[in-house]
Amino acid sequence: MPAALPSAARPSDETLIARRRALLGASYRLFYDRPVHLLRGEDVWLFDADGRRYLDAYNNVPCVGHAHPRVVEAVSRQMATLNTHTRYLHGAILDYTERLLATYPAGFGHVMYTCTGSEAVDLALRIARHETGGAGVVITRNAYHGTTAVTAGLSPLLGPAVPLGRDVWTVPAPDARLGAETGARLAADIRAAFADMRRHGVRPAAFLADSIFSTDGTRPEPAGFLKPAIEAVHEAGALYIADEVQPGFGRTGGHMWGFSRHGIVPDMAVMGKPMGNGLPIAGVALRPEVAERFGREVRYFNTFGANTVSIAAATAVLDVIETDRILARVDASGARLMAGLRALAERHPAIGDIRGAGLYIGVELVSDGAPDGGLARRVVNAMREGGVLIGASGPADNVLKIRPPLTFSAAHADLLLESLASALGEALSEEG
Amino acid sequence: MPAALPSAARPSDETLIARRRALLGASYRLFYDRPVHLLRGEDVWLFDADGRRYLDAYNNVPCVGHAHPRVVEAVSRQMATLNTHTRYLHGAILDYTERLLATYPAGFGHVMYTCTGSEAVDLALRIARHETGGAGVVITRNAYHGTTAVTAGLSPLLGPAVPLGRDVWTVPAPDARLGAETGARLAADIRAAFADMRRHGVRPAAFLADSIFSTDGTRPEPAGFLKPAIEAVHEAGALYIADEVQPGFGRTGGHMWGFSRHGIVPDMAVMGKPMGNGLPIAGVALRPEVAERFGREVRYFNTFGANTVSIAAATAVLDVIETDRILARVDASGARLMAGLRALAERHPAIGDIRGAGLYIGVELVSDGAPDGGLARRVVNAMREGGVLIGASGPADNVLKIRPPLTFSAAHADLLLESLASALGEALSEEG
Repeated sequence: MPAALPSAARPSDETLIARRRALLGASYRLFYDRPVHLLRGEDVWLFDADGRRYLDAYNNVPCVGHAHPRVVEAVSRQMATLNTHTRYLHGAILDYTERLLATYPAGFGHVMYTCTGSEAVDLALRIARHETGGAGVVITRNAYHGTTAVTAGLSPLLGPAVPLGRDVWTVPAPDARLGAETGARLAADIRAAFADMRRHGVRPAAFLADSIFSTDGTRPEPAGFLKPAIEAVHEAGALYIADEVQPGFGRTGGHMWGFSRHGIVPDMAVMGKPMGNGLPIAGVALRPEVAERFGREVRYFNTFGANTVSIAAATAVLDVIETDRILARVDASGARLMAGLRALAERHPAIGDIRGAGLYIGVELVSDGAPDGGLARRVVNAMREGGVLIGASGPADNVLKIRPPLTFSAAHADLLLESLASALGEALSEEG
Repeated sequence: MPAALPSAARPSDETLIARRRALLGASYRLFYDRPVHLLRGEDVWLFDADGRRYLDAYNNVPCVGHAHPRVVEAVSRQMATLNTHTRYLHGAILDYTERLLATYPAGFGHVMYTCTGSEAVDLALRIARHETGGAGVVITRNAYHGTTAVTAGLSPLLGPAVPLGRDVWTVPAPDARLGAETGARLAADIRAAFADMRRHGVRPAAFLADSIFSTDGTRPEPAGFLKPAIEAVHEAGALYIADEVQPGFGRTGGHMWGFSRHGIVPDMAVMGKPMGNGLPIAGVALRPEVAERFGREVRYFNTFGANTVSIAAATAVLDVIETDRILARVDASGARLMAGLRALAERHPAIGDIRGAGLYIGVELVSDGAPDGGLARRVVNAMREGGVLIGASGPADNVLKIRPPLTFSAAHADLLLESLASALGEALSEEG
């Protein structure tokens, strides 16, 4: 177990930052004004080089907690036994796939595996284009769907230097201020986008969205608003791809999959980040009929995708989700957090809105009613100094992003609320 | 240590094959007419469910051998300590990057990390397009460069159901029968492709090739033939991307990188498969000036790319390559294999050509001078039944592909030669 580094042995943060810039280049960015130098993780805790402890309220990848012993053991054992690919027979991938599909609605029948969410979105789109014969995709205006050439082209979040694909149309994110009309508006926007696409001679292939619109500032309510959207997608002859990389594996509470909150059944669902608790495994779950022609005509092989070690990790994650009743815990601690945030909002007019589901929560910060990205940044950095790690997101970077490991408890929620209250006070007084 | 499965507990291969088809879909293919059900690996050996041992002469991913104790230990330790991403400070990624760059020619300064070779090729192309402002790519006629939408579009190997990119031009693979003219011909073909591209209004971005043209049937000779090619690429204003996913990390002998055999220095080099001995890590090494604008304008984040566990694996691989003098072993066992294959060819007119470098060797099988893919298939399957695993490749699937872990020894080479001699005899008699 690594304790703190003795200060003589410890490089200064400045040295590490300069080496990073020299070795990895300018595309690599760090979190926080004063980046954190982490050495160890355990459940919801992270420890820096000084031995200082941080409450992790940001990382969704270690969904069952950092260094979960069951995952560590499964990976270590399989590493020592066999690590190979899917062109040999092996039972574990089949057992895992059966268990995973059992968490999906009836009709889902196949899983295809990749290493990253980007690769999985990219594959889902390859399938959708192959099956529909179309190319056009509709996404929301500040979406993020990955980092391959095609998925970066589906990610307006990355900014104007990264061009959107020529076959990509965008629609405004759903707006809960429309209440019961939220779904009708989104569906109308999707219909208009597909119509405009056809007017340009581009045949529709897919609509792609995550069910909480995470980079659009977190937009989960009112649950059910995706029902009219999926109708509009099917009317256009396109496939509905649910990006479950963020909401999946219980993150949004109550269900394993975010689309279930809306009572819809997509054509494909893309899974990623938390799937292996940090081992690179991701995939596409689908109804067999939507990949029938693709399967017949196109072979698919991903060297590391679903290798025997990744499958061991993913299996251990499912085990823990079941035995530790993770879904119920998400509901309980998510509710506690939401209640605490609402109480805090009553004292702080800078909290303009709180939007969330389960343990994916966005807290919008405003000044005089307008988004205040600067305030969000000061709050995030003050909390980091206070030992709690969160982030900020949304088109104006003013939405605090709270997305802890799913083992987050009521006590952890209280700690976070305390830290947020104090950081808000500090950040607001700095401003004045 | 898993022994053989007791036969009562062991599902039949037919059951596993049927479950695979049902759960993973038709895109998933298996090796061999009678697929192998593997349970354990150790160095160059793989063990099936009956406890039967196979000599692995095919898998390049476990480059320092299956389940190498040093890699297992490094991964297990880091899993239990911390597995997180590149937006926090951590020393190990910097130490690893320095060591990796020290194996490159002067001028290489950055490494950017992904999880898979496909993602790395995809990223290299994003960079090339961003920097040159062009889109056009030249590749060889039976190339394979990946499985994302864009890299599958650079992979004619995948067959006619997978469309090449609109901005992709192909040239014939280098042909050693031209002797000293091989390089001049390739360069002329590349020049013509870039000219035709410009004639269509498409601006050049990159030439992309691996230095042994693995899926074009293995074409390593005469070493140096890429020198005129790189001049032609630069004349066109394009960047030369070396796909080192196959040749890299010492595979082709003598050097860490395949391009060094040709005495060239590419603009970017893409690494993958063997980098983490099976942990999903890959990347792009580059000269900083070719990514200057990209770095300034585009942020890059790959959630699992170069996570602390993958870096631990990759570091252990470099350790073993150095301490076990792997490069020298590749030279020795590669030479032994080549000599043995040449001796075999004198007795077997079905061996039309032997082409290889280090431990990447192609053995072309012919009947009456024409490529014989059926014969190659019978040989590969007969060797599998005899306990030696190889594959077949090339545009006519008639080139036996021998590509073992780099710890392959002279004794292993002899075993393979014996198995090949016997399989050839068997396959030829079947034919008659």
